[in-house]
Amino acid sequence: MNGAVETVRPAVATLDPTERLLRSCRGESVDRPPVWLMRQAGRYLPEYRKLREGMGFLEMCQDVERAVEASLQPIQLVGSEAAILFSDIFTPIPAMGVEVDFQPGPTIADPIRSLEQIDKLRIPDPRESTPYVFEILRVLRAELASARIPVLGFAGAPFTLAAYLVEGKGSKDFAALKRMMYAAPEVLRALQSRLTEMVVGYLNAQIEAGAHVVQLFDTWAGLLGPAEYREWVLPVHAEIAARLERERAPLILYVNNGAHVLDEMLESGADVLSLDWRVDIAEAARRVGDRASLQGNLDPCALQQTREEIFASVRRISEAAQPARGHILNLGHGCLPDTPVEGVRAFTDAARALGEEQPRGA
Amino acid sequence: MNGAVETVRPAVATLDPTERLLRSCRGESVDRPPVWLMRQAGRYLPEYRKLREGMGFLEMCQDVERAVEASLQPIQLVGSEAAILFSDIFTPIPAMGVEVDFQPGPTIADPIRSLEQIDKLRIPDPRESTPYVFEILRVLRAELASARIPVLGFAGAPFTLAAYLVEGKGSKDFAALKRMMYAAPEVLRALQSRLTEMVVGYLNAQIEAGAHVVQLFDTWAGLLGPAEYREWVLPVHAEIAARLERERAPLILYVNNGAHVLDEMLESGADVLSLDWRVDIAEAARRVGDRASLQGNLDPCALQQTREEIFASVRRISEAAQPARGHILNLGHGCLPDTPVEGVRAFTDAARALGEEQPRGA
Repeated sequence: MNGAVETVRPAVATLDPTERLLRSCRGESVDRPPVWLMRQAGRYLPEYRKLREGMGFLEMCQDVERAVEASLQPIQLVGSEAAILFSDIFTPIPAMGVEVDFQPGPTIADPIRSLEQIDKLRIPDPRESTPYVFEILRVLRAELASARIPVLGFAGAPFTLAAYLVEGKGSKDFAALKRMMYAAPEVLRALQSRLTEMVVGYLNAQIEAGAHVVQLFDTWAGLLGPAEYREWVLPVHAEIAARLERERAPLILYVNNGAHVLDEMLESGADVLSLDWRVDIAEAARRVGDRASLQGNLDPCALQQTREEIFASVRRISEAAQPARGHILNLGHGCLPDTPVEGVRAFTDAARALGEEQPRGA
Repeated sequence: MNGAVETVRPAVATLDPTERLLRSCRGESVDRPPVWLMRQAGRYLPEYRKLREGMGFLEMCQDVERAVEASLQPIQLVGSEAAILFSDIFTPIPAMGVEVDFQPGPTIADPIRSLEQIDKLRIPDPRESTPYVFEILRVLRAELASARIPVLGFAGAPFTLAAYLVEGKGSKDFAALKRMMYAAPEVLRALQSRLTEMVVGYLNAQIEAGAHVVQLFDTWAGLLGPAEYREWVLPVHAEIAARLERERAPLILYVNNGAHVLDEMLESGADVLSLDWRVDIAEAARRVGDRASLQGNLDPCALQQTREEIFASVRRISEAAQPARGHILNLGHGCLPDTPVEGVRAFTDAARALGEEQPRGA
């Protein structure tokens, strides 16, 4: 009888949020999916809007106290079970010698178009050039230690950073970037190589400062078809995956609009593939099987639904993700400013409810 | 000996451009792929910029003489083998009673958010409300008759038109549209149903005026994941496909960013699926087989390559598309303003060169 009870409720039922996230990343059995939301520290929270009042975004990223508070808000206010470093993918760029402005997207005064400009890019020790990033991580880790809430670090992927640096600003089709890809491939290759060096050092320093998991955001790599992605993006992801201290912190790879490059994402060797809402997660789970865990992938707009509908959506996604070795519940993209707070709350509650219904790995 | 020669060079070697396009749409054997480019009448052509000088876009769409000239330019200047009606997907909208402005994307003074607004939408006879559209088609058909160049008509798909009408303007994530999808589905359904009525009448009138082929542009349907696409978009495409005079003019369906909904596009029953450059056309061709023809799918930015590289890209795409029953050579998206004219010329020349190397269907 005791034995039977143990089979139904295995040891994994007592996981804390850090164990749950790390085990999910690595494909070990867990009681239920961990949950957090991309852009969970954001304008949909009145408390966040108040904290940001009168402050520029970059300024806020450098203000350790406020950045920590912003990172903690979603834990306290909507029940998220992981804190992510409050920062921007462009945080490490100015120290490379590039002037960046936010209006509000990153804008580059002098877009990078030549090898000469790339030669001049510096790769300083991030602990010296952006000390606040690591201080934020250390404080978060200490603050969240007793609740055993994990801390995530992150960086922008080289292709996405290069997209802005070459184009000079956000764009619908990034024509200048793609012109470079076709007409001056050696320049783009040199730029990506420099950025890869930076990203590897930056993420390893975040791991050293206490990040339990790191996420690489490739917002624009989905602009490429599979052949171009394989040439320009996959080797960069694979190099980063190979050079990170992965025994200490698993790597989540997010490629926005990447439904067509799932096989290539898988080849990168990342521990977790973070899917946008366009991907059929059931099919993705069958394809990755025991080779990677998945993260995602509710449409951020679906948080407009009723609490019951959100619970049903979460249950559907969680069941569809079963064939993958692990699953982290998240959105398919960042949380939108007009999202109802109660929708976000319902989302994290729905993850907790999964633990009561259906122990995973049992 | 004669028999052997006939096997190598069958009757299809003498196809004219209209026959080549129509046979390709229907999956009948052809000598080589037909070729045209989306947004081939556009700013990359100095002659187009001159013609547009000092003219608003909508104004130009209503000026039959200039619109005809713009439609003919790519035939004369860069060797395109099909003319497409010079117009905009928003051309039929003002007559429904909606105020539209271009700045430069369509902007709606009073976004549609209620059933009351939808009830007021009119569906006038397009021959009366937009007579210039049909006049342009008739003139094009007459002008191009001796060269046997086919004429294409087009319309925006209901989902894309609804996206602008609900959102009020272009958007990155169309949050207002998706909010309606989740929170007031009956309103979006009513709007799409009205727009479907309009599109069916508008395209059938274009066929009556002489369009050899019509293309339905769904620019924003790729925003949806496969399940939402199946609910909101597929039934609309299928209804349109069923109600068009398809024996007279085949239907091409273009879904931008639709790599993840290829199976759903196929189920619509359209004759030709137009793929963006993110789709691996080899895989798509294997999946559609003899059930549909394909159109596409060179990355518009790849026209920045050298003539030799463009020839190689076209050859690669054409070979990859072989498993599909037919293939129309085109870009994966509209031609960009900064495209070199000689790149476009090389693209159409490359299609003609295919006929010399490798007769298709032989």
